Amino acid sequence: MSIHTQQPIRVVQYGLGPIGQGCANLILQKAKSGQIQLVGAIDIDPQKVNQTVGSFVDEPSDVVISSDASNVLSETKPDVVLHTTSSFMPQVEEQLVQCIRSGVSVVSSTEELPYPFERYPAIASRLDTLAKQHKVALLGTGVNPGYAMDVLALTATGVCTSVRSIAVRRTVDAGLRRKPLQMKVGAGMTVEEFQTRKQQGGFGHIGLVESLRLVMDGLGWPMEEFSEELEPVVAKTDVQTPYLSVQCGQVAGIKHTAEAFVSNDIGVSLDLRMYVGADHPEDRVIVDGDPPMNLVVEGGIFGDTATVAALVNAIPQVFASSPGLKTVADMPVPRCFMPQVSL
Amino acid sequence: MSIHTQQPIRVVQYGLGPIGQGCANLILQKAKSGQIQLVGAIDIDPQKVNQTVGSFVDEPSDVVISSDASNVLSETKPDVVLHTTSSFMPQVEEQLVQCIRSGVSVVSSTEELPYPFERYPAIASRLDTLAKQHKVALLGTGVNPGYAMDVLALTATGVCTSVRSIAVRRTVDAGLRRKPLQMKVGAGMTVEEFQTRKQQGGFGHIGLVESLRLVMDGLGWPMEEFSEELEPVVAKTDVQTPYLSVQCGQVAGIKHTAEAFVSNDIGVSLDLRMYVGADHPEDRVIVDGDPPMNLVVEGGIFGDTATVAALVNAIPQVFASSPGLKTVADMPVPRCFMPQVSL
Repeated sequence: MSIHTQQPIRVVQYGLGPIGQGCANLILQKAKSGQIQLVGAIDIDPQKVNQTVGSFVDEPSDVVISSDASNVLSETKPDVVLHTTSSFMPQVEEQLVQCIRSGVSVVSSTEELPYPFERYPAIASRLDTLAKQHKVALLGTGVNPGYAMDVLALTATGVCTSVRSIAVRRTVDAGLRRKPLQMKVGAGMTVEEFQTRKQQGGFGHIGLVESLRLVMDGLGWPMEEFSEELEPVVAKTDVQTPYLSVQCGQVAGIKHTAEAFVSNDIGVSLDLRMYVGADHPEDRVIVDGDPPMNLVVEGGIFGDTATVAALVNAIPQVFASSPGLKTVADMPVPRCFMPQVSL
Repeated sequence: MSIHTQQPIRVVQYGLGPIGQGCANLILQKAKSGQIQLVGAIDIDPQKVNQTVGSFVDEPSDVVISSDASNVLSETKPDVVLHTTSSFMPQVEEQLVQCIRSGVSVVSSTEELPYPFERYPAIASRLDTLAKQHKVALLGTGVNPGYAMDVLALTATGVCTSVRSIAVRRTVDAGLRRKPLQMKVGAGMTVEEFQTRKQQGGFGHIGLVESLRLVMDGLGWPMEEFSEELEPVVAKTDVQTPYLSVQCGQVAGIKHTAEAFVSNDIGVSLDLRMYVGADHPEDRVIVDGDPPMNLVVEGGIFGDTATVAALVNAIPQVFASSPGLKTVADMPVPRCFMPQVSL
């Protein structure tokens, strides 16, 4: 039955970059329902420390941002930390450990956390053991990884008697997204610049292989082998966004793919295209199974809003979860928490 | 992580009508993986008692069908009963109680079981209490109710910051489905016959209001008021199916709708059309939210196969569940169990 609670869930926002600010703002909106409450905020940026959360978001809030995580956690004793600081496990391990040791469950946007068991087995094992000791749950989620290319793919197979393969294609018009994303996909670079920067490794969508592992593991398919590719999408016409311009022949964005195999055939293939000027954005899951399933989000899922939503919507689920390091595939069917924010 | 198990899950098939036979056959196919096993079968039909399951399904099986449920349960000591006997709660309560008292978890196709808390609060409360006493779980599911008009609707809101309304429309070409379904939707009747039979109450899709309640409860919306309507869909041309013919002006099938309200506006509306000759079958969820979501299963979900799949795929989830009377919204993200049946 309903997982909604009578007591407000007390949340600390850890990290107040663009996504963290979006989360804090949404928590403050939903707080009007009496079911959730923002009780603290952590960030190390000197521009933010000692300012109120309200000075960075639309909703009013007197919660003061502190750089002393330990102090915030012990003083506010939150139920859940919403953690949005970095994409990579090694950078966040200590932060997560500190939350867990304080007896607080964590929802995190760290893109490597949705499936850390293969890439970081030692860290994953330490976090899982510690979370169980302290009887708290830990979840990495977001729109991608966390929903578009993993949860939707698994969900599409829920009414199949058999599955031979799954192809997921997400096409995002980066021109509609925020500037850092347009920069991140290399929009406006020459193809040579793109290839050079790709060699340096600073590129591509973080979390694609994590989605691949989530789907394979969710279906019980051992993932012995996989391949991953990153290519530029080259603009076929000039494109102008609010932030930059891309000329025909320049890089418009990325095509990032990953495939895993089952008995030598492709089991799961993920194809992510994020580029400015994409003329048919959508999220599509094609299941070659019985029955076949062709699940589409027409127009695609608008990522910036959806990431914030996925994180905040996970709060009550993680709060109610059994302890340990969880994945989105362990969580109940996703849903909007407190759907009418302006009650 | 993976909910797949090392020991085979031992299953008794309770009810061997068309859906039950499909379930037994699928369990026998998946048994080749070593993760599931059919250990018993129950049916009261004298034509089936003392016959082997193998004589009613494609897969070979020596399991003998018995009418003595108590004996089968105590002799085979299964982990899970897959129960497919009747659509209505009062008819199945004793059967479910017997399974629970035998310490066995149950996945059931009973269309009123996915959300029995409002229509049958006393039965639901007894079953929940008993299931918790005996540390077993009980779940009603299928493709509809259980997936197409409830789980998909909730899932579509999982990346929304706010939701004002959800409209679900499922259009099924009944001409492609089995004969009892074509009869059940009134195909080939005159409109007068349809209206007469509708007065007698033997008509319409069972479980639509259960889906409505699942979605409303899943979103935390109180369901104080709802409306439900059943109308014939009248054929605009002659239609021929493998089983019957419908002339222009005769009934082709049903349009069954249900709506619930939030603050006087429609919160959730479900629109199910099942008729022969439907020319654009699909499953569509439209979320008026932020971001808006337009989730479509193109071509629709083929119901006969999907029902069997939904039931069998729920077995490992119910086996791993905490005790009590559960709903599909409590279960982890749905997925195909042992996707490659012909390993």
